[in-house]
Amino acid sequence: MKLDSEEAFLELVDRYFPRKRRGEPGGRGDDCAVIPCGEKLCLSTDLFLEDVHFSRTYFSPRDIGYKSLAVNISDIAAMAAVPEGFLLNLLLVPDLPDAFWPEYFRGLADLAREHDLYLAGGDLSRSSRLGMGITIWGSPGACVQRGGGLPGDLLFLVGEPGLSAAGLQILGNGGDRDEFPDAVAAHLRPRLHVAQARRIATCSGLRALMDVSDGLARDVPRLLGPGTGGALRLEQEDLHPEVVACARWQEISPVELAFRGGEEYALLGAIDPSCREELCELVPEARIVGEIVRGEGISLNGDPVGIKGFDHMRGG
Amino acid sequence: MKLDSEEAFLELVDRYFPRKRRGEPGGRGDDCAVIPCGEKLCLSTDLFLEDVHFSRTYFSPRDIGYKSLAVNISDIAAMAAVPEGFLLNLLLVPDLPDAFWPEYFRGLADLAREHDLYLAGGDLSRSSRLGMGITIWGSPGACVQRGGGLPGDLLFLVGEPGLSAAGLQILGNGGDRDEFPDAVAAHLRPRLHVAQARRIATCSGLRALMDVSDGLARDVPRLLGPGTGGALRLEQEDLHPEVVACARWQEISPVELAFRGGEEYALLGAIDPSCREELCELVPEARIVGEIVRGEGISLNGDPVGIKGFDHMRGG
Repeated sequence: MKLDSEEAFLELVDRYFPRKRRGEPGGRGDDCAVIPCGEKLCLSTDLFLEDVHFSRTYFSPRDIGYKSLAVNISDIAAMAAVPEGFLLNLLLVPDLPDAFWPEYFRGLADLAREHDLYLAGGDLSRSSRLGMGITIWGSPGACVQRGGGLPGDLLFLVGEPGLSAAGLQILGNGGDRDEFPDAVAAHLRPRLHVAQARRIATCSGLRALMDVSDGLARDVPRLLGPGTGGALRLEQEDLHPEVVACARWQEISPVELAFRGGEEYALLGAIDPSCREELCELVPEARIVGEIVRGEGISLNGDPVGIKGFDHMRGG
Repeated sequence: MKLDSEEAFLELVDRYFPRKRRGEPGGRGDDCAVIPCGEKLCLSTDLFLEDVHFSRTYFSPRDIGYKSLAVNISDIAAMAAVPEGFLLNLLLVPDLPDAFWPEYFRGLADLAREHDLYLAGGDLSRSSRLGMGITIWGSPGACVQRGGGLPGDLLFLVGEPGLSAAGLQILGNGGDRDEFPDAVAAHLRPRLHVAQARRIATCSGLRALMDVSDGLARDVPRLLGPGTGGALRLEQEDLHPEVVACARWQEISPVELAFRGGEEYALLGAIDPSCREELCELVPEARIVGEIVRGEGISLNGDPVGIKGFDHMRGG
């Protein structure tokens, strides 16, 4: 199949994604998608660009398809909402192997099928740089937002801090992928926590929830309300062994790697301390990583820290 | 203001767009925007990239802001829906003059204010090419879609075919902007037809509606249902004088320019012929440009024609 026109490209999309599904009034291909919704809708959009968010050196086309959607699903999970469908903008470059786009759509469809997501429309354009922009929508349930925490609330995490960053170190610096299978998988195909977030949202003392995309260092302050800070505790023995091994290989501190590493897509939240047991029953993999304190600023294991994490404008 | 971090950039956005507005449960800055909606929502997304959709040679930063949103509002108008708000993805390049982004946001805010649109969120990333991706939503009213026309239905147009394409010729080939003010304006700041579309949607015999973004040649077939074709009539005396003058200057046929020229953002629709008068009373500027016929294919003034228009993958 030669992808030399919009029509040919849209035909390829049709092979992987049905044009219409039950309950959708329209179907793909009109000026707008017409989507059914309740009283409220969660809506989010993310860019996924070559050499900023991924590299073709170590991402297979199928991985690119998977992760381009995963980062969006994570935003829906972070609101404890249910993802429903998405729009896809593609920046197309001419020099790709023939198999690139079919493989991309396979990876995208793998994850879309897992969450029963409908591709409702989008746009495509030639570009000088390969990339995607996905807009996702979902039905809010509890609709848990940021900024609701109070001093004394516990901070909790679902996911492995630093594991994706360790994967990036391995992939980007020629490490042995076979020695770091979990880290590599965390970076290429991050685990999502949609179901866990829905369970967490039933917790009576939940105050705030978000996903960690730019690293704990940058994202903990974003969870906090004005006039509050975070006292974080991250011990080396609590980290995934591949995070520790990767940090040693790179001669950096494992705790720093876990604190500053981005693209985790872990869930970060705040709960009333009286609900600690309830949370751990609902989601056994949730772990307490600190607490909210009075006064702005972040400390890690007792020491005040700078909050520089990953900045997508600066690239580091 | 130095735009050297995400935070600085988001502060700039806040100067032009309120972070929260009445009726919106959330406010900008969370993982998702949470938007109020009725039973259905219209949703659309478009890319707007430098050297594909605009050139900094003749688009001012403020024009870029205006048009990047205008192309999306046009998609909402094409469903006879009311635009409500949008998400903004920005591809940032480092070598822009300091005034670029403030001017961009001024142009964007000009148009957003005109239609009372809320900026609910988005994403930004450094890139090798300047560009935007906007996702817009709106409340559907009649929710008029494509493909509903029957043989014998009349095709109508609201807007000036070829005028934006004439503007592009003038701007791109060093024509005299002062001699072609309407054409230049049509290209840089296309007129939108939101109110007209809402009136058209009340017409009892309306069968289909869309906006013309890739030219009549490519978009008329997209309006038609399976097994039907279009017999178009476009006479030189019906065209805007600047379309005729520009075509003469470029030594091409004015009718061809009107038929093939893209980025018009005119409304194109089909109505039952018994409703011709009703349509013209509702929207006096609507003009009949042909009819739907049995059998696929397009003819222009009696002659069968190829349907190649503007292809954003091929760039021509």
